[in-house]
Amino acid sequence: MSYIYFEDIEDGTVRDLGSYTVPKDEMIAFSERYDPQPIHVDEAAAEASVFGEIIASGWYTASVCMRLLVDEFLGKAASIGSPGLDELSWLTPVYAGDTLIVENEILETRPSGSRDDRGYARNQTRAYNQDGDEVLTWTGTNIILRRNAD
Amino acid sequence: MSYIYFEDIEDGTVRDLGSYTVPKDEMIAFSERYDPQPIHVDEAAAEASVFGEIIASGWYTASVCMRLLVDEFLGKAASIGSPGLDELSWLTPVYAGDTLIVENEILETRPSGSRDDRGYARNQTRAYNQDGDEVLTWTGTNIILRRNAD
Repeated sequence: MSYIYFEDIEDGTVRDLGSYTVPKDEMIAFSERYDPQPIHVDEAAAEASVFGEIIASGWYTASVCMRLLVDEFLGKAASIGSPGLDELSWLTPVYAGDTLIVENEILETRPSGSRDDRGYARNQTRAYNQDGDEVLTWTGTNIILRRNAD
Repeated sequence: MSYIYFEDIEDGTVRDLGSYTVPKDEMIAFSERYDPQPIHVDEAAAEASVFGEIIASGWYTASVCMRLLVDEFLGKAASIGSPGLDELSWLTPVYAGDTLIVENEILETRPSGSRDDRGYARNQTRAYNQDGDEVLTWTGTNIILRRNAD
């Protein structure tokens, strides 16, 4: 595995994280466990709502994007965690069968002021659906080790 | 079910959302599917890391808190979705067996300027562990219908 270290991360890099087509069973199973609001789990309630059918939990959509981010970036990087996100936006409802096309952009890199073995990469993850609608964005920070930090 | 409508939501209300003790199997199963970074799924890698053992994915911790928020507030409210979060902070690592104690505070309510059937409730969800350490916060907005909407 060729590791990506803090020195390798450049402001402005946009990574294609691939895509994922949302299976209805998985989408609803997530909501039944973690977000059982009627619009996420109840066909009749969702039909009667403005959405017309069941929509994904925003947490499910984010989790699916996270998997792609790990597969294509964080899992290849010397990442040791995240203090959090500056924003997480749910912009368009996600339905079963939608294809999410996901990318990540490095917004800003900054060496740690107190620890010389690491730096911070502020980055944005964005998902679009098959119609080109922006579905989700989040902007967060990851802590990435330098190459010779053991 | 006694519904909570926009008119019923008051700035400053703090709701106790209960607690949840994190099962190791569920915590790791979530990460294997959605966030398979070594510190979340690989015992040996986690032992060699600063964390000492496997820690929860921040998305798992958020999802567990969301379930409590739905059970104790959103599932009882005429909530029709959320445009997103202003911040999501992971403040303390979560380990298997930790007990998360969760609360929600209504920060600000605001009627919609364009739709007279709804309003916005900006609110913060906070989780603490069994030692009193703040583990997670997020601040977001939910759209809540008024009592006589439609």
